[in-house]
Amino acid sequence: MARMDVVSKQTAQKIERLAEQVMRAVKGGKNPFVEIPVRSLANVRFDPRKRIVQLGGQRQKRYFFNVAMAKKFMQTFLVSDACKELVESGKTTSIRDLYYITKHTIGETRQNTFEEQDESDPIIEDLEVALDALREELHLFASRKGSMVGPITIRDSGDTIDLRRMGSGGWAVPSIVEENVIEFVRHEARYVLLIEKDAVWTRFNEDKFWKRERCVILQGGGQPPRGVRRLVQRLHAELKLPVYVLVDNDPWGFYIYSVMKQGSINLAYESMRMAVPDARFVGLSSFDKDKFRLPANVAIKMDDGDVSRAKQMLGYPWFKEARWQREIQEMVRSGVKFELEALSRRGISFITEEYLPRKLKEKDWLE
Amino acid sequence: MARMDVVSKQTAQKIERLAEQVMRAVKGGKNPFVEIPVRSLANVRFDPRKRIVQLGGQRQKRYFFNVAMAKKFMQTFLVSDACKELVESGKTTSIRDLYYITKHTIGETRQNTFEEQDESDPIIEDLEVALDALREELHLFASRKGSMVGPITIRDSGDTIDLRRMGSGGWAVPSIVEENVIEFVRHEARYVLLIEKDAVWTRFNEDKFWKRERCVILQGGGQPPRGVRRLVQRLHAELKLPVYVLVDNDPWGFYIYSVMKQGSINLAYESMRMAVPDARFVGLSSFDKDKFRLPANVAIKMDDGDVSRAKQMLGYPWFKEARWQREIQEMVRSGVKFELEALSRRGISFITEEYLPRKLKEKDWLE
Repeated sequence: MARMDVVSKQTAQKIERLAEQVMRAVKGGKNPFVEIPVRSLANVRFDPRKRIVQLGGQRQKRYFFNVAMAKKFMQTFLVSDACKELVESGKTTSIRDLYYITKHTIGETRQNTFEEQDESDPIIEDLEVALDALREELHLFASRKGSMVGPITIRDSGDTIDLRRMGSGGWAVPSIVEENVIEFVRHEARYVLLIEKDAVWTRFNEDKFWKRERCVILQGGGQPPRGVRRLVQRLHAELKLPVYVLVDNDPWGFYIYSVMKQGSINLAYESMRMAVPDARFVGLSSFDKDKFRLPANVAIKMDDGDVSRAKQMLGYPWFKEARWQREIQEMVRSGVKFELEALSRRGISFITEEYLPRKLKEKDWLE
Repeated sequence: MARMDVVSKQTAQKIERLAEQVMRAVKGGKNPFVEIPVRSLANVRFDPRKRIVQLGGQRQKRYFFNVAMAKKFMQTFLVSDACKELVESGKTTSIRDLYYITKHTIGETRQNTFEEQDESDPIIEDLEVALDALREELHLFASRKGSMVGPITIRDSGDTIDLRRMGSGGWAVPSIVEENVIEFVRHEARYVLLIEKDAVWTRFNEDKFWKRERCVILQGGGQPPRGVRRLVQRLHAELKLPVYVLVDNDPWGFYIYSVMKQGSINLAYESMRMAVPDARFVGLSSFDKDKFRLPANVAIKMDDGDVSRAKQMLGYPWFKEARWQREIQEMVRSGVKFELEALSRRGISFITEEYLPRKLKEKDWLE
């Protein structure tokens, strides 16, 4: 067993406690069970004080001696066991890999432990909520996308990396960015800028916006993957850096902002550690077409999906504030959306030299 | 005008020559035209000596005084002009951005120069072949994915980056990796390993395979983007490093290898600078299920699309060799495919500690 860091030790202990509780039930002649918070929509709510999407208090018991539950019970322990081995060996793996690792044929039967990955993925989510441990703490990673540069030095798995000297490429953000992997060594950053599109991030990096403005710039290739979101949250929580989100003026851009800010409904149990309720929207606003004199021919007509998506967002508790309602209503009314790239019509570096500096100076953001 | 490097100067000159030729025609009272190699399938062929997919000799003339061609002629020069400005200013941008930059309404009409990006993208490709300049030399970038680590020091836009100290994340590979942006400073690498999947790359990085084996490891998140392919090609051509490609045992994995090796049919004109005909396939072979004792339950049934795709590949000139025919025929015969992750059934580090070392030692690859 490799020497474990504090985080890994705690995670291993959580898994052990789960197993011990089951063993006690067995020894006591009782039907063993695991208790798992319910992850259905009915048990998800917006906490207006913390301003995040959270799981409610409903829990369900998964029994071993129950025909409907026995297989899932067994699967839960197969996954727990594999995760404990990962944590103790100091290795990490993908959820696809975990599926293969835990898949086998049971004894002499023709029954497999798992048929498809869509059986093992929910078990991982069950385990996350049951243990109150992010999958990253269980040493499981998601797919990775995204890059980061800025006036900050980090330590990644023992290597000290100066993100001020990362050229045009940047540092590739890994999927697992917990404290035991990524440390913040020193920085002169004033804020964090999360950019929806890699192409726009490249513009900001090429123009050395981060140097001039002293900020960390990140992109996650569209909807940011878990690694990027968690890293933004840590930069905010630990270094007290304000977070600005730069996205398109369309329902998808608003959604990206919304997930970064409040968490997602599907994965409500992780909001506490993935969401930044203070995140500020500096993306294109539905009113920017006038403010920044964008020609009409760079507008894109919204399709039916866009419109119904936007209308749905009008109902989100965190978009109830008057300015957001006005914003979304204007989008629906106008029937058009705008991409960040539309700003290039005003000049290739308009976005880094005029658009964003002006937004920040005039505090022209939505929260 | 920023001081230009040699590559940029050459590109700017190529655009100027194109324009001068048109101006000469105008002054001579002739109908000006641009000559563009035909990019249709009929003009694509496999060159068995160079072993790459190449454009043939057919060319077409695009005239200004021709109702069917006038708009495209105008668009060609709008795009040329924007690219010349980019090159001269030392800035780069995305093809999406270029669409917005060159889009405007013509005079007092309601006619736009471009309606959609699918009009400007082919013009870029036309310009690439007409000028014999990759789009990267025109300062246009594609979307970026992928990461790289290994025993090599590079210079990226003036920053010296030691890819031996990139932690778990790695260096994010940019889209433009031409000599004027990325230089190879020094290295101790013995070969290049291109890995299809980010999750598998993470395994190789975590296990420090690249350190033990002295190799550069890259991943491009599935089908590698242009930046990753071009970088692999440069590592091969300039540093004389052999290239190994590690992909799934399925038609998609074979296709990824095929594009890295011979180039793609769609973009045949760039094969010379993107393809590595010597690239070796160390991905899962259809015969590895026995060789590496993979249990039957990790096989995945091929669907109709997979089967017809595999059969199509039997006809590719570069898969005509007996071993490849046997390989693809076995896949079709068995009706199943395997992912690299299936190797994890034998242990989480089986792929880095047994599978690949054995393949390399026994020279058990396909070419």
